[in-house]
Amino acid sequence: MRMAASGHATQHRFERLVLMATVVQKFGGSSVATAEKIKRAARRAIAARDRGNQVVVVVSARGDTTDELIELAKEITDRPSAREMDQLLATGEQISIALMAMAIHAEGAGAISFTGHQVGMITDSVHTKARIKSVDCERIKKEFAKGNIVIVAGFQGVDANANVTTLGRGGSDTTAVALAAALKLCGSENVVCEIYTDVDGVYTADPRKVPEARKLTEISYEEMLELASLGAGVMHSRSIEFGKKYDIAIHVRSSFSEAEGTLITKEVKSMEGIVVRGAAMTRDLAKVTLRSVPDRPGAAAEIFHQIASANIVVDDIIQNISREGQTDLSFTVALADIEDVIDVANGLTKELGAGAVEIDKNISKVSIVGVGMRSHTGVAQKMFKALADAKINIQMITTSEIKISCIISRDHAEQALRAVHAAFELEKE
Amino acid sequence: MRMAASGHATQHRFERLVLMATVVQKFGGSSVATAEKIKRAARRAIAARDRGNQVVVVVSARGDTTDELIELAKEITDRPSAREMDQLLATGEQISIALMAMAIHAEGAGAISFTGHQVGMITDSVHTKARIKSVDCERIKKEFAKGNIVIVAGFQGVDANANVTTLGRGGSDTTAVALAAALKLCGSENVVCEIYTDVDGVYTADPRKVPEARKLTEISYEEMLELASLGAGVMHSRSIEFGKKYDIAIHVRSSFSEAEGTLITKEVKSMEGIVVRGAAMTRDLAKVTLRSVPDRPGAAAEIFHQIASANIVVDDIIQNISREGQTDLSFTVALADIEDVIDVANGLTKELGAGAVEIDKNISKVSIVGVGMRSHTGVAQKMFKALADAKINIQMITTSEIKISCIISRDHAEQALRAVHAAFELEKE
Repeated sequence: MRMAASGHATQHRFERLVLMATVVQKFGGSSVATAEKIKRAARRAIAARDRGNQVVVVVSARGDTTDELIELAKEITDRPSAREMDQLLATGEQISIALMAMAIHAEGAGAISFTGHQVGMITDSVHTKARIKSVDCERIKKEFAKGNIVIVAGFQGVDANANVTTLGRGGSDTTAVALAAALKLCGSENVVCEIYTDVDGVYTADPRKVPEARKLTEISYEEMLELASLGAGVMHSRSIEFGKKYDIAIHVRSSFSEAEGTLITKEVKSMEGIVVRGAAMTRDLAKVTLRSVPDRPGAAAEIFHQIASANIVVDDIIQNISREGQTDLSFTVALADIEDVIDVANGLTKELGAGAVEIDKNISKVSIVGVGMRSHTGVAQKMFKALADAKINIQMITTSEIKISCIISRDHAEQALRAVHAAFELEKE
Repeated sequence: MRMAASGHATQHRFERLVLMATVVQKFGGSSVATAEKIKRAARRAIAARDRGNQVVVVVSARGDTTDELIELAKEITDRPSAREMDQLLATGEQISIALMAMAIHAEGAGAISFTGHQVGMITDSVHTKARIKSVDCERIKKEFAKGNIVIVAGFQGVDANANVTTLGRGGSDTTAVALAAALKLCGSENVVCEIYTDVDGVYTADPRKVPEARKLTEISYEEMLELASLGAGVMHSRSIEFGKKYDIAIHVRSSFSEAEGTLITKEVKSMEGIVVRGAAMTRDLAKVTLRSVPDRPGAAAEIFHQIASANIVVDDIIQNISREGQTDLSFTVALADIEDVIDVANGLTKELGAGAVEIDKNISKVSIVGVGMRSHTGVAQKMFKALADAKINIQMITTSEIKISCIISRDHAEQALRAVHAAFELEKE
């Protein structure tokens, strides 16, 4: 803790000391795409510091920079090495941090930029999707002591041998939450992580599909993780996991307004009053059914081993009880992967002595998420009735403790989302 | 030392072992401006390795990258901090090294890229014009042992606190020569530094001005340093000083041909046979004469202190003997600086009680350089006669041990260069 040199009386200074918090502000690529936007973000960081906070700013690569760098690599080779790709892509964030520091300086405030290496962001050596192992908060605290805003390159780190690594999709969010967690572990109090983005928070459903969708004031980590896995989240799963693990409140808000966004925070008792926090729809899925699979140990394992080996991510799996020593096995995958799946499935049926392979490329999934489901009954029934009332046939159902998903025809996907949203009155506070 | 795995018989391997050298190849910005040029440079590095060498490749930022980064900074602020400017500009070389590594991989050879930090290029903390303090050759040698080509970002280093620094103009040349020197100090034998550029060597004069100018096979460090200070060198002074200090042969050659270029090397006895190695012309100069300066101790010091304080680099200074306690003091500066100089000079004359300030903006300088001057007489006379024969008036003369310069009117600058070139028959081997 430190106080900036000031003429305030002791009492006032003591108040500031008590109120002082540490704010990690993350600005995504679209929030730093132009000089004007960088300056706006700089002013926001300075405003947070002027309110008495210690401020860390995490930035992504500007706008299309990452795409342009990928394009440069493609001109050289179709199969760039992961290490060199990381070395290349990390420059995008390095450009952003330098420009952000310049913008803060231009407003008359102190700031210093750090690459992943300079801030001691140590990861494992898995290039393009590295995991953070440790963060050194000493250098940040030294700069806080000088009254500086600390700017850190998102998305990047270094492994134990100083090779540059990147954290994969949504990596800058992870950088921000990890820095917040590290500062908390180093003794900073009241640590908050603010994620500035081009939407102004997390909604009860995608507002482009459900116009009456409402911005949430708060959401639990668990609910946000489920929404993220449904592709509906504003943030990537790993950053939310970090927030959950270290209990860092994550405030998702707009770069372009002062309005409060959505606070992602730990589940508290009062949250259970809300049965369903939000609804989501995954549009482009395909369903694969393997008919008459011999019902013997290892059959399913073999099937999903082969699919995973082909780098295909399976969305949901459903296997009903068997009849006459055979079972029908269904699973869903992203529509984009279906041709690869067909190849694998055809090979599999021969190998296993299974029956026909049925493919349905016209599949979507509608889901509801809420921690209140744990303690409320009749939630699934209410969802099924809403779909039935809208004359939408449910093809498959999967559930988790805080989520219910229905596989339906894509023809009714948006209608189903709106019907479910209305049935649970998500538009109401 | 190591041998790549191969099926060669022991004797053959021994020969290769004896012949093995370490080659540092530096490719400037124009040599890596496009994917095609990067691939060409990659093939050249592989060819050098295939000849049995250990190869380090140093690259600059691609084509206009540095200018584009400077432009980004300008959009933010007119006065970027030097530290953040270095943080920004260093990304240009980092992009180049990653692409170069990918290009070498694409050809099936092993390579790894290193930033200044990763290769242990430690400098002082003078941002934008840092000086190299040490290089860690261990990481390079480890990669040599794996059979890899090592690619290093030119122009950049880090200070003791891991802040990114840059080496200033011509910095990538300095990186290359410094790496060569470090490897030599670490025990590598037969270390050569090759500077690939868009000219094919060092000429007896600028071939654009003197069509009959001849490419030099070799030139001494001292001669090259003089030519560099005359603005005529292909390379920046600091890299040549490094080469001289550590006795690293520097081969300046074309990226676009296989022809031998010019070897910059230590002075040997046989070089003295060549009286004049080359001629150079500095076109855009201006001459300032302070009339009737009081001839007292400290007057000149005060004058040049004030000029240096205004960040003006003085080219040559000439003071004749004094008459009646007063002297006329003349000096030349780059034409671009003359308005600043006039301001300083007018203030000075008042302060010192000197006479008028005379300005001549129509000034050029023609020079000859050669270590043979030390042991030959009549060289100056021959130069003056050449100019006299061409009816060119000499306004001022300055000399060093291996250089003679004449200040003349810009109207005759090119004519003077050609006259001197011809008089010393520099076009002949």
